[in-house]
Amino acid sequence: MSDIKYSFGLWTIGWRAQDPFGAATRPALDPAESIRKLADLGAWGFTFHDNDVFPFDADESARQAHIDSVKKAAAESGLVCEMVTTDTFQHPIFKDGAFTSNNRQVRRFGLRKVLRNVDLAAEMGASTFVMWGGREGTEYDNSKDLASAHARYAEGIDTVAAYIKSQGYDLRIGLEPKPNEPRGDIFLPTIGHAIALIDTLDNGDIVGLNPETGHEQMAGLNYTHGIALALYCGKLFHIDLNGQHGPKYDQDLVFGHGDLLSAFFTVDLLENGFPNGGPRYEGPRHFDYKPSRTEHLDGVWESAKANMATYDMLAAKAAEYRADSEVQAAFEHAGIFELGESTLAEGETIEQFLASDETYDVDALAERDYGLVKLHQLALKHLIG
Amino acid sequence: MSDIKYSFGLWTIGWRAQDPFGAATRPALDPAESIRKLADLGAWGFTFHDNDVFPFDADESARQAHIDSVKKAAAESGLVCEMVTTDTFQHPIFKDGAFTSNNRQVRRFGLRKVLRNVDLAAEMGASTFVMWGGREGTEYDNSKDLASAHARYAEGIDTVAAYIKSQGYDLRIGLEPKPNEPRGDIFLPTIGHAIALIDTLDNGDIVGLNPETGHEQMAGLNYTHGIALALYCGKLFHIDLNGQHGPKYDQDLVFGHGDLLSAFFTVDLLENGFPNGGPRYEGPRHFDYKPSRTEHLDGVWESAKANMATYDMLAAKAAEYRADSEVQAAFEHAGIFELGESTLAEGETIEQFLASDETYDVDALAERDYGLVKLHQLALKHLIG
Amino acid sequence: MSDIKYSFGLWTIGWRAQDPFGAATRPALDPAESIRKLADLGAWGFTFHDNDVFPFDADESARQAHIDSVKKAAAESGLVCEMVTTDTFQHPIFKDGAFTSNNRQVRRFGLRKVLRNVDLAAEMGASTFVMWGGREGTEYDNSKDLASAHARYAEGIDTVAAYIKSQGYDLRIGLEPKPNEPRGDIFLPTIGHAIALIDTLDNGDIVGLNPETGHEQMAGLNYTHGIALALYCGKLFHIDLNGQHGPKYDQDLVFGHGDLLSAFFTVDLLENGFPNGGPRYEGPRHFDYKPSRTEHLDGVWESAKANMATYDMLAAKAAEYRADSEVQAAFEHAGIFELGESTLAEGETIEQFLASDETYDVDALAERDYGLVKLHQLALKHLIG
Amino acid sequence: MSDIKYSFGLWTIGWRAQDPFGAATRPALDPAESIRKLADLGAWGFTFHDNDVFPFDADESARQAHIDSVKKAAAESGLVCEMVTTDTFQHPIFKDGAFTSNNRQVRRFGLRKVLRNVDLAAEMGASTFVMWGGREGTEYDNSKDLASAHARYAEGIDTVAAYIKSQGYDLRIGLEPKPNEPRGDIFLPTIGHAIALIDTLDNGDIVGLNPETGHEQMAGLNYTHGIALALYCGKLFHIDLNGQHGPKYDQDLVFGHGDLLSAFFTVDLLENGFPNGGPRYEGPRHFDYKPSRTEHLDGVWESAKANMATYDMLAAKAAEYRADSEVQAAFEHAGIFELGESTLAEGETIEQFLASDETYDVDALAERDYGLVKLHQLALKHLIG
Repeated sequence: MSDIKYSFGLWTIGWRAQDPFGAATRPALDPAESIRKLADLGAWGFTFHDNDVFPFDADESARQAHIDSVKKAAAESGLVCEMVTTDTFQHPIFKDGAFTSNNRQVRRFGLRKVLRNVDLAAEMGASTFVMWGGREGTEYDNSKDLASAHARYAEGIDTVAAYIKSQGYDLRIGLEPKPNEPRGDIFLPTIGHAIALIDTLDNGDIVGLNPETGHEQMAGLNYTHGIALALYCGKLFHIDLNGQHGPKYDQDLVFGHGDLLSAFFTVDLLENGFPNGGPRYEGPRHFDYKPSRTEHLDGVWESAKANMATYDMLAAKAAEYRADSEVQAAFEHAGIFELGESTLAEGETIEQFLASDETYDVDALAERDYGLVKLHQLALKHLIG
Repeated sequence: MSDIKYSFGLWTIGWRAQDPFGAATRPALDPAESIRKLADLGAWGFTFHDNDVFPFDADESARQAHIDSVKKAAAESGLVCEMVTTDTFQHPIFKDGAFTSNNRQVRRFGLRKVLRNVDLAAEMGASTFVMWGGREGTEYDNSKDLASAHARYAEGIDTVAAYIKSQGYDLRIGLEPKPNEPRGDIFLPTIGHAIALIDTLDNGDIVGLNPETGHEQMAGLNYTHGIALALYCGKLFHIDLNGQHGPKYDQDLVFGHGDLLSAFFTVDLLENGFPNGGPRYEGPRHFDYKPSRTEHLDGVWESAKANMATYDMLAAKAAEYRADSEVQAAFEHAGIFELGESTLAEGETIEQFLASDETYDVDALAERDYGLVKLHQLALKHLIG
Repeated sequence: MSDIKYSFGLWTIGWRAQDPFGAATRPALDPAESIRKLADLGAWGFTFHDNDVFPFDADESARQAHIDSVKKAAAESGLVCEMVTTDTFQHPIFKDGAFTSNNRQVRRFGLRKVLRNVDLAAEMGASTFVMWGGREGTEYDNSKDLASAHARYAEGIDTVAAYIKSQGYDLRIGLEPKPNEPRGDIFLPTIGHAIALIDTLDNGDIVGLNPETGHEQMAGLNYTHGIALALYCGKLFHIDLNGQHGPKYDQDLVFGHGDLLSAFFTVDLLENGFPNGGPRYEGPRHFDYKPSRTEHLDGVWESAKANMATYDMLAAKAAEYRADSEVQAAFEHAGIFELGESTLAEGETIEQFLASDETYDVDALAERDYGLVKLHQLALKHLIG
Repeated sequence: MSDIKYSFGLWTIGWRAQDPFGAATRPALDPAESIRKLADLGAWGFTFHDNDVFPFDADESARQAHIDSVKKAAAESGLVCEMVTTDTFQHPIFKDGAFTSNNRQVRRFGLRKVLRNVDLAAEMGASTFVMWGGREGTEYDNSKDLASAHARYAEGIDTVAAYIKSQGYDLRIGLEPKPNEPRGDIFLPTIGHAIALIDTLDNGDIVGLNPETGHEQMAGLNYTHGIALALYCGKLFHIDLNGQHGPKYDQDLVFGHGDLLSAFFTVDLLENGFPNGGPRYEGPRHFDYKPSRTEHLDGVWESAKANMATYDMLAAKAAEYRADSEVQAAFEHAGIFELGESTLAEGETIEQFLASDETYDVDALAERDYGLVKLHQLALKHLIG
């Protein structure tokens, strides 16, 4: 087992495998037991929604008893609670959204539920507070005033961020984009949309992203490109790794069990950074997946292990790939390093640039062979050769 | 014919209908003739790429002659040149990108080509300068340093914006997102990603978006939601209307010939704004489509008319829809107006909110019938009833 | 209300709105009450899965009491039970499939459950017995021997068909294709795959299709094209109408609330047949949709009405469209009727064809303007003009 | 280099890299030179469209000279011409289809062109004659009478098959499905649809499929499942291997450069057959891909090699995977072999089955852990471990 910091949502191994067309196939797991089991398997951390640990309608003492049980298991097993999040999607009250519900009372109820969990996150020592607005969206374009919806969404997030600051909590918010399901169209459908909204916030400095592999791929988008933009914008605060086979329902497969080549390049970026340096992801390698419904409890733990084992294998391959001098030569040949140079020279003004009599050998530039297929094949050889 | 300001790209009706598996089926059109014809059909404006009007390798005098011909036709026909853009994708020199090419000479060549057209846009009296980076992307995740690529893209755009300011041109830049095609994955794949990058620019105040209906739909995203976010962020500078049938190759159908209900709500937003007011789109209704390859010249002009006629019909229906008191009542019932109210009251602090003993009738809120299907059906009835 | 025969699955209006991320938002409906309500709304028929009417583990007397209640409501309301189907997907026993489960005992259990419902279908006077194998599939390509899976699927269907014949029931089987969800990849993903398997059966003459609008669209396929192939192959036995927005989770929207233009052409085909005549669909107009989770009971019935109202409106528009002489002229111009002529003349042999000195004016043929955009715009004008 | 029989279309390495938004980046290659080069790289065979070798409007002597050049290169290099096909999509005359054009003269011209190439295929010693009807389709549902279109398509294919038989050629037809591009919706969009149409033909016994990896994946369908159905139906006559990233434009990447895990299971099926035996694919491993437009001639040949090298690596991994006793045990545990057993026992009648008092331990069956994730992870470990 590598020393990579892996963490799991309690809702992942705890998923009972109900789906739109089928009842649960597995019993409920005790969160405390799950924490111990994850520790045994070599995980470093865990994360949870409030209602993974205690029911929506738990009274104070029941709530605290559940929390205490989790804390005790964490303390005894050494598993770190690195992130907490709030369930604002399961209960029927949120059927039209939480922060963007057309009903103001629902919005206030949702805000209160989230703020309560900010306190819990701080209490648990988490460093990230994820917000997935799974019900913030519509099935029909006229179901909401779409500007008001964005305004309310921004208001809600900003309020939570302001509260974190006011309490002096060492917490950052990670928004989780998703294009659709369970709503026909969800607000903040991609990494880009989420950053765009964050940039309108007063307290956006502590608001970033928690992008999920499969969610971007559900829109046919490239996850590695997406997290690269998030890193470039300083917003990759947390990460949800899993597997998906393109635009269809949210599969939540084991990491690597979807698009394997994409997973390889994701790991390469997370572990080795950009070839020319620059921002790095510093958070945990967090898995948000679902053990297939065909599996019973053995399969649950086999699938948990599979996530870590696959990441480990990909990390090892990525290290070899980067260390290969032939790969580095192909980087050079392809111009990977050259892309690190600014287009205008250091200090060169637009006026100087336009005034220069620089000429270009258009035919030669057009006929350059970048060697990109060969470079990709080198990666493939490292992966499976 | 309505008094709506319709404009067309010269490359739309001028498309000769070559595609990845077939040769051109139509002759080249003279741009000046196209301008006159568009004016005859009732269009208000036109737009073009540099190489729609003159060849890539035109010398100075040939270039000017072509431009003069277009200017003359515009002046005579009264058609307004409202936008100019640059072709940085057709020529093989741009095969690996223009602003994000791994080759710095290509980047400098591309930047020079773009800046040249900024001058032309100003000369033509255009108010928008569109940049579609169709070749800025990759087929393979390791083809570029993805942080450097975003840095170079940002550098290029910022340089163009700075140049516009330095020259005192009355021009704003409209970035055009697209998820893929002709590259496997294009940078700035969606409206969100483009805004995110703009927010990192020094001169981002004059950089906004030119979102295309079909481009968002190629990612399975909701175009009306997308332009709503762009409006909310103050970035909807220009618009490309057309039709598409979901995630597949870029179809560029006539506006409304793809997802008709979505087109209706797009028009409703453009013409009538958000129900609760807020930012409005003020630019032209610009069509970026392709006459089907099965058509010859008659079909070219029939398809141009179809764009305007469809928009006109949708605008008329949308006006009736908004004016219908039953619709307004359904808005009220659904909470459309209530979403315009802030979640926290005016002046209410988080502390006050948390300290209040406000209670919520969870069961009643969970059982609220929002009437969203009925509201949608009302729209449908206005559209086709 | 038109005299079109509309029918609804009891599971549609009876859906309690649980989804992968949320609990039920609506109470259970009594099937008998639903039947009466549907009759009141103007429906002609109803359909059901066994477990829409009685629980999976109902004993004999409970089962019969539930069936009797439904029969009574049908008799009293005049609503026709036109189709019965079997739930082989909800219970955990079917988590790896019913007819294609890797476990032979499960396959035998599933077969027994289906055969029992064949008797029930006959008892109810249904004419169609639908089989949707929602769990027949895999998440991973190595989860099954894929030839054995097809063999078992064929064996199961053939056995059911043989049983129908042996009992002399006046029933035909309708297979329902779906590409994915709840399995990663479902066997018989499209109309084509299902026909291909039917053609291998001994009793395939009474096995046809029950294609669902949204299921084909989840694969980005054209539903109208699909049912045209099914008609051409003599296999369009039944139909599931609803709405979908392309490749994403199964939305089950109201018919017409997804791709409206596609719905128009579906209705045009169902109501008016092919322009050149040929096979017609003779079954009921059956809706398989889900009232949105945001709605409570009012919204359930509003959505049921919306299906019928939309179909009615589209049928009226399609009738006008076909009756329009301009449309007929555009059909003629486009060659719609000419496509009805065989390519070789009546009695012309290949040898004669090849020996003839027929010449072709290639340039003229290449420049023909088919007028397809204009024709499509004529349809659009009828729809929304 | 393995002894696997690899073949390439001349249009693959010969693609000049023009695309919808860009001009060619590479010079034309001489087909004869390409054949020699492919032989040098270790390929076994080649394939071509008529117009890969001679122009559309070549006269007899030019045509024969081009063919002779190819024959000579084949003879000298030892490369086998295993398949010939006809270009019925590039020329404007086919813009509305060949066999399904609304214009009967075009249909007759297209049929003549195809029959001419049947003779050429026989002359070249090819065993397969592929027909990809890339223009057989529509952008709009009313562009064709959809029953007539299927009838004409069937007529055309049947005529070609009858001609093959009448001439005694040792040729089989391979239809190539594709869902869209260059038409909005192409007839025979998937493997299933093509088999369905074949089953209506008089001469369908010599008509099967040539399925392409990426074409099925463009519809989000599972290619390995698809070729399994084709094998089950006795229709997998030929194969087109390449890479694709889900529903978007046709990428034609190197085999394995798209969905790598899917490619692994495709190779496993092609090389090792179904776990329980059954039909095998006996044809060549044929690549239909495009060297990326960023590459010049070096990259063309690097990409050609990459196809074979990737297939070789996957074949080696698949052999190890199948030979692993742990994998075989997991097959046993998962019930892979049990799925090979018929559901009814040998000789068991439906009556006996229904009359038996067989009972089922429903709870135990529902709780079975199939171990499918673990089995998939075993495959992954063989692939990248």
